Amino acid sequence: MNMYDLINKKKNKEELSKEEINYIIEGYTKDEIPDYQMSAFLMAVCLNKMTQEETANFTLAMASSGDILDLSAIKGVKVDKHSTGGVGDKTSLILSPMVASLGVPVAKMSGRGLGHTGGTIDKLESFPGFSTSLTTEQFIKNVNDIKLAIVGQTANLAPADKKIYALRDVTATVDNISLIASSIMSKKLASGSDVIVLDVKTGSGAFMKNYEDSLALAKEMVQIGTLAGKTTYAVITDMNQPLGRAVGNAIEVKEVIETLSGKGPEDLLEVSLNLASYMLLGSGKVITVKEARQLLEKTIENKTALDKFAKFIASQGGDSEFVYHPELLKMGSICYDVKSPGDGYVQKIRTDEIGMASSLLGGGRVTKDSKIDLSVGIYIHKKLGDKVSKNEPLATIYANDDKKRKEAKKRIINAYSIGRDKPLIPPYIYSIVTKDKVVHL
Amino acid sequence: MNMYDLINKKKNKEELSKEEINYIIEGYTKDEIPDYQMSAFLMAVCLNKMTQEETANFTLAMASSGDILDLSAIKGVKVDKHSTGGVGDKTSLILSPMVASLGVPVAKMSGRGLGHTGGTIDKLESFPGFSTSLTTEQFIKNVNDIKLAIVGQTANLAPADKKIYALRDVTATVDNISLIASSIMSKKLASGSDVIVLDVKTGSGAFMKNYEDSLALAKEMVQIGTLAGKTTYAVITDMNQPLGRAVGNAIEVKEVIETLSGKGPEDLLEVSLNLASYMLLGSGKVITVKEARQLLEKTIENKTALDKFAKFIASQGGDSEFVYHPELLKMGSICYDVKSPGDGYVQKIRTDEIGMASSLLGGGRVTKDSKIDLSVGIYIHKKLGDKVSKNEPLATIYANDDKKRKEAKKRIINAYSIGRDKPLIPPYIYSIVTKDKVVHL
Repeated sequence: MNMYDLINKKKNKEELSKEEINYIIEGYTKDEIPDYQMSAFLMAVCLNKMTQEETANFTLAMASSGDILDLSAIKGVKVDKHSTGGVGDKTSLILSPMVASLGVPVAKMSGRGLGHTGGTIDKLESFPGFSTSLTTEQFIKNVNDIKLAIVGQTANLAPADKKIYALRDVTATVDNISLIASSIMSKKLASGSDVIVLDVKTGSGAFMKNYEDSLALAKEMVQIGTLAGKTTYAVITDMNQPLGRAVGNAIEVKEVIETLSGKGPEDLLEVSLNLASYMLLGSGKVITVKEARQLLEKTIENKTALDKFAKFIASQGGDSEFVYHPELLKMGSICYDVKSPGDGYVQKIRTDEIGMASSLLGGGRVTKDSKIDLSVGIYIHKKLGDKVSKNEPLATIYANDDKKRKEAKKRIINAYSIGRDKPLIPPYIYSIVTKDKVVHL
Repeated sequence: MNMYDLINKKKNKEELSKEEINYIIEGYTKDEIPDYQMSAFLMAVCLNKMTQEETANFTLAMASSGDILDLSAIKGVKVDKHSTGGVGDKTSLILSPMVASLGVPVAKMSGRGLGHTGGTIDKLESFPGFSTSLTTEQFIKNVNDIKLAIVGQTANLAPADKKIYALRDVTATVDNISLIASSIMSKKLASGSDVIVLDVKTGSGAFMKNYEDSLALAKEMVQIGTLAGKTTYAVITDMNQPLGRAVGNAIEVKEVIETLSGKGPEDLLEVSLNLASYMLLGSGKVITVKEARQLLEKTIENKTALDKFAKFIASQGGDSEFVYHPELLKMGSICYDVKSPGDGYVQKIRTDEIGMASSLLGGGRVTKDSKIDLSVGIYIHKKLGDKVSKNEPLATIYANDDKKRKEAKKRIINAYSIGRDKPLIPPYIYSIVTKDKVVHL
């Protein structure tokens, strides 16, 4: 077997066997296959596609390229959730304590990643003392004890994916559904949960801008998860405006606490409840989504989810007093209202521009080594369909640098379209993808 | 402008501008664009194709990437000929003195190359003392004096092509018509002739195995040459059996001398006359192919071509006595007849196997640094459609190593199909491609 022939096969639209795909992933991970051969192969994949079986094998090979977390010492069916990424997306922090408070173990491995805001781990670091550097033993013990722990991604998780992603990023081979799906799923498969619920975002603030692409990605990922023996669901949710009202790090944690206290924004709660319902369904805790939803709503009403969150923060060294006093969370020293330039309805929000504004303020990582300012962020006052008068605040910026504040303001103004007619409001959730069907809501 | 966007453009089937193509070729030649980006781009070209204009710009950019030979000091219209390569192809050595003896300047730059036998330069080195290391001044002087000189390819001729070819060779991006055509034509354009006649081979011993591909390549190359302001013709000729009867180096030179003496094989003479006719037509020396042919036939009859060949050999330091006494050319010490395993007609000759046999004997270069044995080779006794009896010689091997002789014998036996029925014999020449039409013969 040699790489030349395998590139040629894909160029000629032939299907690669499991052995051939393993050869490619192993060879590339071990530096035996050079970048220039891999990039030619990846371009052939982009243009000639991979079959579902090839994609599943590609994913499994990447998952096996490094450590695979062994969670067998955790009692019960372990559930995990992954989002393809969006602006203001803080559902992990809401649904994890909800699900855990019902006795279903959530053993989560999270990355820091690049993006508009920090990752889940960065956000959690808004709590003084909080750490995700747990030993595997401690991680497992915490999940067994309180049903919830979040650990940082180990360096050796799916190293093939890391290497291939870096190459795709510079060779215009990013936007292929099979490659995107396998990149996400390889890490999920390596992190050892039994049930995977995928939040596939669609819209102006998402990686996939239109519904059809999001659906294709969701189907591909559910297929891979299923072939790998994991119960997998995907929920396609809206990203044509920020989720909730907070965009940033500490500011998003505040909104998480509000939501767990029953005072959160409706869209954020609704998306969280939906995702959590499929986690419960997958775990076997319930047999209908309706039942799951009733149980989950109760965890908000009786504050068991909020208490679980506080326990979780404390279990990883954080100060849980902040959970009950979110006003303690440090916010940017400059607080500035971005005012509406006119009267009318909010017709459109270029959500990626809002994300960019947050990143510009210092809330997101531009390169792997950027330091994040957890205290900056944006609070959205006006969402799609809202009526607004001239000079009424569209959003509030929390900043620590006035130059950055000015730039962020420009972005936010640019993001909003205000017009005479009330627009159609997109739904919070479009559809649910299971291994054998798509349910449109 | 950046390479990522240009890869992406080609991936999305958009057409690249001249400036964009120049950016790619210049950047890659100067090592500013890394191999892994170039190989992704080349794969996108293989799968999404380039337009004729893109191909022409790609070729011109490669031609301009190094030295361009300035032949303006040579009086008259300079003509050159290029073959896509075949087994037993020695037409350059025949047609060059024919054309030169009619007063049309042939200023030829030749490579050594890899292949079944050596290149034109290797073959010429069968003459003791012969050298192609001429200074540009000497080269030009020789062409002005005797109308014929052959010089080795300079290291800095179309370096972009050299670098890109090496990358294509390891990334399965060789077989794209635009890339093949531009690779050949970039070198031809850089070597400064005014008229280019292309011998595009088709058949079992050629790079292009079928006529349609050969025609497409011929059209593409003629188009490029025309856009670059050169009078360009392509002649599509047969390569389903070795051309002539000699395959090797010294043995081919012997056949060249026989042909120039009026005693050569019909197919070789016919192909040489055709190619030479278009060289004369392009030079303006004649206005019809018929007229060209009459003049060229006379150069054989009255031995002016043979004498020109002798003068040319002497002008570059070779011993011209060998031209009149070809028996002096050194041949392999082992002479072995490969006998027919049965009775019947030669129905098929796997010509690439004959080429491989020559290479195995030591007559061709396997790697860039291989040393060629000029004295080894194969003489073909039986050609397509010939009647043969069991044990009658199919071919004679000239070798210097009995182990290699045995391997070559196996290849030759394997190359021949002997059967009961007389096969259809392919024509010597299929068609002529000019800038505005294809004439099928």
